Amino acid sequence: MIKLFQYNWMVRDEWFELFKQVSTEELTRKRNGGAGSILYTLFHVLDVEYSWIRGVQGKPEILVQFEDYETLDQIKELSDSWLNETRAFLHTWSNDFEHETVTVPWTEGHFVKGEILRHIITHEIHHMGQLSVWAREIGLQPASANVIGRGLLSVDLPPV
Amino acid sequence: MIKLFQYNWMVRDEWFELFKQVSTEELTRKRNGGAGSILYTLFHVLDVEYSWIRGVQGKPEILVQFEDYETLDQIKELSDSWLNETRAFLHTWSNDFEHETVTVPWTEGHFVKGEILRHIITHEIHHMGQLSVWAREIGLQPASANVIGRGLLSVDLPPV
Repeated sequence: MIKLFQYNWMVRDEWFELFKQVSTEELTRKRNGGAGSILYTLFHVLDVEYSWIRGVQGKPEILVQFEDYETLDQIKELSDSWLNETRAFLHTWSNDFEHETVTVPWTEGHFVKGEILRHIITHEIHHMGQLSVWAREIGLQPASANVIGRGLLSVDLPPV
Repeated sequence: MIKLFQYNWMVRDEWFELFKQVSTEELTRKRNGGAGSILYTLFHVLDVEYSWIRGVQGKPEILVQFEDYETLDQIKELSDSWLNETRAFLHTWSNDFEHETVTVPWTEGHFVKGEILRHIITHEIHHMGQLSVWAREIGLQPASANVIGRGLLSVDLPPV
């Protein structure tokens, strides 16, 4: 399962790279469906990943506002900074935790840790699928969503 | 990892259900990006899943043509019929197979079985993300992509 986080981070960085050539106006343009704009989608994916990664650890929420991250560079920096903690947590992950439950600050209920991790993974892939449609709208070839060809099972989770 | 297959099949069936109210003309309309149309996307997702599931088992390819599956019902039937074999295979899956390699009939190279399974999973989620944008274009609320709330870790892979 951890390999799918690594996959997401590879793909995410390819999207960051691809969108460097696109104006902020285009990146923030309101689009049909999904989370609404390319830039907000990237922010939202990070925010959801990090919120749940904090939540699964029983740590307090760190609230961030999209308005404070208005450029691609700022969102990429936010991504990089949060990944350290996420990687550190995933290094400690064991299948023994799969069925443990946690509560989180932003909503009621008990959440199963194994479901939270899968939720984070699929959430990002889903939104990247939306980006791929929007990328075509602005004449870009989308970042590849392929798992095959990345040597994913030969790449260790980087040390923290 | 198998849980993410179950997630995909749940979401897939929700899309099939949702699209029942949509005309075949709308389902086959050429759309921006992705695999081109809603109906073809559903067919493509099945075809890729089943091809790789056959491939990972070293079984010969079964070639199907989209032209022979012109309605949502036909594609849903195809999905159901292929899932029996896919479930049977996944029941035999063990992490010991992760790094084993196979060749497949339709392209050159050696493919790592664990990467193939992850490829199938992410491939479908990615395309469902595209469907969610297109669903909005035709005024539909997309099927939920959430993992959380499905009780996924409490549901066993159905027997075959």
